[in-house]
Amino acid sequence: MGKPVPVRFGILGCANIARKVSRAMNLAPNSTIVAIGSRSLEKAISFAKENGFPASAKAYGSYDAVLDDPDVDAVYIPLPTSLHVRWAVLAAQKKKHVLLDKPVALNVKELDLILEACESSGVQFMDATMWMHHPRTVKMKEFLSDPQKFRQVKAVHSVFSYVGGPEFLKNDIRVKPDLDALGALGDTGWYCTRAILWAADYQLPKTVTALPDAEFNEAGVILSCGASLRWEDGKIATFYCSFLANLTMDITILGTDGNLRVHDFVIPFQENNAPFYVTSNSRFVELSLGCDPSPGEHVIATELPQEALMVREFSSLVGSIKGLGSKPEKKWPEISRKTQVVLDAVKASIDKGFELVEVVF
Amino acid sequence: MGKPVPVRFGILGCANIARKVSRAMNLAPNSTIVAIGSRSLEKAISFAKENGFPASAKAYGSYDAVLDDPDVDAVYIPLPTSLHVRWAVLAAQKKKHVLLDKPVALNVKELDLILEACESSGVQFMDATMWMHHPRTVKMKEFLSDPQKFRQVKAVHSVFSYVGGPEFLKNDIRVKPDLDALGALGDTGWYCTRAILWAADYQLPKTVTALPDAEFNEAGVILSCGASLRWEDGKIATFYCSFLANLTMDITILGTDGNLRVHDFVIPFQENNAPFYVTSNSRFVELSLGCDPSPGEHVIATELPQEALMVREFSSLVGSIKGLGSKPEKKWPEISRKTQVVLDAVKASIDKGFELVEVVF
Repeated sequence: MGKPVPVRFGILGCANIARKVSRAMNLAPNSTIVAIGSRSLEKAISFAKENGFPASAKAYGSYDAVLDDPDVDAVYIPLPTSLHVRWAVLAAQKKKHVLLDKPVALNVKELDLILEACESSGVQFMDATMWMHHPRTVKMKEFLSDPQKFRQVKAVHSVFSYVGGPEFLKNDIRVKPDLDALGALGDTGWYCTRAILWAADYQLPKTVTALPDAEFNEAGVILSCGASLRWEDGKIATFYCSFLANLTMDITILGTDGNLRVHDFVIPFQENNAPFYVTSNSRFVELSLGCDPSPGEHVIATELPQEALMVREFSSLVGSIKGLGSKPEKKWPEISRKTQVVLDAVKASIDKGFELVEVVF
Repeated sequence: MGKPVPVRFGILGCANIARKVSRAMNLAPNSTIVAIGSRSLEKAISFAKENGFPASAKAYGSYDAVLDDPDVDAVYIPLPTSLHVRWAVLAAQKKKHVLLDKPVALNVKELDLILEACESSGVQFMDATMWMHHPRTVKMKEFLSDPQKFRQVKAVHSVFSYVGGPEFLKNDIRVKPDLDALGALGDTGWYCTRAILWAADYQLPKTVTALPDAEFNEAGVILSCGASLRWEDGKIATFYCSFLANLTMDITILGTDGNLRVHDFVIPFQENNAPFYVTSNSRFVELSLGCDPSPGEHVIATELPQEALMVREFSSLVGSIKGLGSKPEKKWPEISRKTQVVLDAVKASIDKGFELVEVVF
């Protein structure tokens, strides 16, 4: 077998995050960039130039032009959340595979329009949650699945916060009610929610209760909030997400026989390797003068950064659909939907004054 | 000035934890053990022998005998919580200074009887929360108080869990409704609550809401639970305490400009030194390909184990009262009371079906 034919990407818009993902498309072995569209042709041209696009890549003065380009197999959509339903549905209708930035939608109703469009067109859907694709994530899951070292999840806590800063808090799309109405919940809370579902093997909680306070900007967009989640088996999770606290990216998972901690789960401190910390069967020593064992560090190297692995995985699925007539992988739309369902429940709980909300799938 | 006259301790009962604290009394430079009482004289005699008591130490077949011994300045009370109010009040009435194990009482009403007795007798009260006395605790507070490195607390999360095991879950006093009715909340939740109050400079939260599930044994004693706490300034805290999950002892504190993590706050992994981890002004690097700085480790050495430092601090206060006519230090009863007030609120929330409860001081 020869080298696979690379998946040909078009990009909708010149968002900052598209710089990172463009680089990932250049790094991944099975993808190439063929087009970028912006409302401003000039912006598209300079974005392509500044971000090392292949010379053959086309720059367009509209998103539609990208979707109408027959050379485009798949699109990456880093537009503000309020525009997702329109452009992701249109992309799917034009038979483009969809790599959609998170939060995928403003609510699950919108997301369902996107997922239905993808399904009826037979195109792959994936959200751009990069850490899912780091080899560390696989290794952490191996630990959590080990009946001797960890056994059963009892409690999960996750945090993703960073300091937006004055300019961000004034002008960023993530604090604008018409663009990213979910604010910190949609931006950083998305990752916390995903981490919790990932730890729970994507079992949905029965109930969600927002932590009894949240911070909002003048337009009512969430700047910080949190929630507790409860499963039928007694498992508990909590998370806290914020634009107002120092950069923190934690998952802490307590099991019956072990625990796991990671402090840079969203974006590893280093690009080429990433640590996590585990303990199993920890005990107080004689007279409780200490504890044993102390947490062990596992460092997982990666040849490609996690966003390139994401692009590679997405392109591999698209390649199979194109080349082998495979069906789209359902796992990815399913976990996007579950994540959105939990976010919606947290939002509903906040809107109801931090009341308990039943999670309905 | 010569060496201070050591404070002469009596111990009520032969609890396992009294072995550790006896060792601490031997290690501390300003204390000595003069008596132990047990309902069984034989047990008292062998406890004294096995735990390296001075040859002059007396063994008694009752707790009363210890309280009636004029050579006893202070008592350490490691009895089951349900017996605290009786014996701590009696000890205070007999003018003995009181080092009382945690949880200090079944509720704040009981604790107030103890604190009133101590106050009217002019004796020192302190609860035996050992980690408060580790030099690491001072260093961590210095970091939290640094306006450049940390600034303002936004969110705190604390965990203390360990696996009780079948024998513990069947027979330990901590799961018996007539002995330690607060179960895991009183035992491990005490530490979480204290950690949160410590991080909040002992400001009480306005409200407490138990996490929407808890586990109980057949007798209704809490085996695992948690809560969220809310302050007037928007600060949030969560904790999780359990007898059913692998040993975990975490405090995570998010500030506007920094964060702090510690993973062995209750009992350090090592007796002679203890680490904590901080970051300040963390940022994503260009293109968000990584983050900087990664958490820095601070290792704090201690010449004496934290329980000996506790005994030394308590003895120093008692020595000042005895020798210099000083007043008892009010800080210790105050923070005990605040801790108990929050525990009571969590218990009330659990009893009300995980409803929000106002904290009343």
